[in-house]
Amino acid sequence: MTALAPGATIGILGGGQLGRMLAMAAARLGFDVHIYTDETDSPAARVAARATIAAYNDAAALCAFARAVSVVTAEFENVPAATAAALAEAGVDVRPDARALAIAQDRFEEKTFLNALGIASPPFAAIDSEADLAAAITRIGAPAILKTRRLGYDGRGQVRIAAAADAPGAYTRIGAPAILEGFCAFEREISIIAARGGDGAIAYFEVCENEHSGGILTRTRIPARVAPSVEAQARGAAQAVLEHFDYVGVLTIEFFLMPDGALLANEMAPRVHNSGHWTIEAALTSQFEQHIRAIVGWPLGPTEHVCDAEMINLIGEEAGDWARLAADPSARLHLYGKRDARTGRKMGHVTRLRLGDRDA
Amino acid sequence: MTALAPGATIGILGGGQLGRMLAMAAARLGFDVHIYTDETDSPAARVAARATIAAYNDAAALCAFARAVSVVTAEFENVPAATAAALAEAGVDVRPDARALAIAQDRFEEKTFLNALGIASPPFAAIDSEADLAAAITRIGAPAILKTRRLGYDGRGQVRIAAAADAPGAYTRIGAPAILEGFCAFEREISIIAARGGDGAIAYFEVCENEHSGGILTRTRIPARVAPSVEAQARGAAQAVLEHFDYVGVLTIEFFLMPDGALLANEMAPRVHNSGHWTIEAALTSQFEQHIRAIVGWPLGPTEHVCDAEMINLIGEEAGDWARLAADPSARLHLYGKRDARTGRKMGHVTRLRLGDRDA
Repeated sequence: MTALAPGATIGILGGGQLGRMLAMAAARLGFDVHIYTDETDSPAARVAARATIAAYNDAAALCAFARAVSVVTAEFENVPAATAAALAEAGVDVRPDARALAIAQDRFEEKTFLNALGIASPPFAAIDSEADLAAAITRIGAPAILKTRRLGYDGRGQVRIAAAADAPGAYTRIGAPAILEGFCAFEREISIIAARGGDGAIAYFEVCENEHSGGILTRTRIPARVAPSVEAQARGAAQAVLEHFDYVGVLTIEFFLMPDGALLANEMAPRVHNSGHWTIEAALTSQFEQHIRAIVGWPLGPTEHVCDAEMINLIGEEAGDWARLAADPSARLHLYGKRDARTGRKMGHVTRLRLGDRDA
Repeated sequence: MTALAPGATIGILGGGQLGRMLAMAAARLGFDVHIYTDETDSPAARVAARATIAAYNDAAALCAFARAVSVVTAEFENVPAATAAALAEAGVDVRPDARALAIAQDRFEEKTFLNALGIASPPFAAIDSEADLAAAITRIGAPAILKTRRLGYDGRGQVRIAAAADAPGAYTRIGAPAILEGFCAFEREISIIAARGGDGAIAYFEVCENEHSGGILTRTRIPARVAPSVEAQARGAAQAVLEHFDYVGVLTIEFFLMPDGALLANEMAPRVHNSGHWTIEAALTSQFEQHIRAIVGWPLGPTEHVCDAEMINLIGEEAGDWARLAADPSARLHLYGKRDARTGRKMGHVTRLRLGDRDA
């Protein structure tokens, strides 16, 4: 894979905050960024050299975009198959590979894939009918969670089934195709963010410890309170996925750490991830720069963390608290430029550094 | 001064690398940026939400720009008086105040101003004729440096006079109005970067130690090897200038540290400065974020340095070495997206962090 020289243009599918932070990392390395999004006035387009605003199935716009850039990446995994196909037809490299995006779009395919690589997950079953659901609850037990197979994020498209009697109502809400996942009484949630370069080298960021509320990440801290063997297990899982796809770019896997020390994969994201935002200040290379380095064929950067850190998401109206946060010397404030603070929308985040704890 | 809310638009005069890094810092805090520059395809415009490309004396374009933004700042001090006047007429706040920009545009006015505030400088004289130059050399002595009063930067518009006999030739090259500055056999060069907020609060970054070659900054390191009394003297000078102008924003003063411990002001810059680029990685708040915080009326951020650091400029063809630097794990690489690597042009910089030295 030939390294792209600074001055080349990187295409990014998606205009959200991940695209925005990727665009700024790319600019820092001397690249231009071209955002492709169906959203007007998107957070990412406002820090990019160029933007195409068009539907993800607009073949002509995709073709023109492909010709204007040297490589394409995505800030979200739900890139329609038609989009990936149109880009492939136009002859532009999409990194990571569209196969990784496709698997991560479907919770059932994703867990099946992870299990096949020897990466354990909570028990799950594909649900295409109410009868499937009844059978799955008998097998997996309750409580369990019924989720849409596709297009769910941040707690959307899922409902908890406390007991078998809840199943019909849950099925009515979620519909098919769905997946039933066994509920895990986990000790904590962690994630690993890793990258594979065009040269096949792999670099891991320190495992993060995450807290969610209503299915939305609220807090990440590093270091995670996990044994070295757990960290090694997480790295092994990331390595297996990265090598399977001959992957180029950043990959994230979220896990449940169970009381018995078992690590169960909950989700993989073929991209930079909210639980890696702390890397902007607290790692030598941010996850965003790392992803850019990988997709342009540069060597991966060092991932050591500079100091311990905690990242807190600003969700919906919480971003209205910007004046207090701006005055808090311990808060490194990031706001994404979203115009409308809808409930559950990620508006920004705050990173707090623990300088004194670096050697703790 | 009322704080601007995230989502407001900040206008920046100038499209170079300082504007680019200011724009990215503003975006991180949730602001949109509108660049005004006379340069097409400028480094700053490529990371900004909007750009106006027009001459600095285009009154109509300036008026439209002023109406489109909530506050204006500049990434360079040589903003024409007509530009500042047109913006003032349009009723937009320019921060820092145009008076500070005006004084910093003229080396003679600048040194006269600093001396009047009690800030010592090398000896100097205004030169309007060959006779002025001869008289000044007699008074100040040789070696000395003859500089244009206006529009010189990065070693341009200056010539060294080793002995009185060189004066006529130097005068022919530089012309009038000029300034003769006594040559200082300094022990080292340092700079202080400070900011004053809209609330009058002042914050200082750690004093930096600088090396120049051919009049261009080549290297900055922190901490500077200076006594606490020297640091206090530098802070005092910055405070005097900031308070004189009721200044809002970041200010830089460069000094010669003489063997006897005296500090002589060489130059002031009413803006973020090349010697402060290390703050991006190695200070809790970067100089760029600090400037944005000041001009939008937010509280200043903490300036503590996270670790010791060294910044090395990539000048002209040195940026062609990007592949080696990209592979160097100790190099945090910044490239400015300039298309043309002309001799003497600042193309990027590298920051090296010294994590182990933080408490040294």
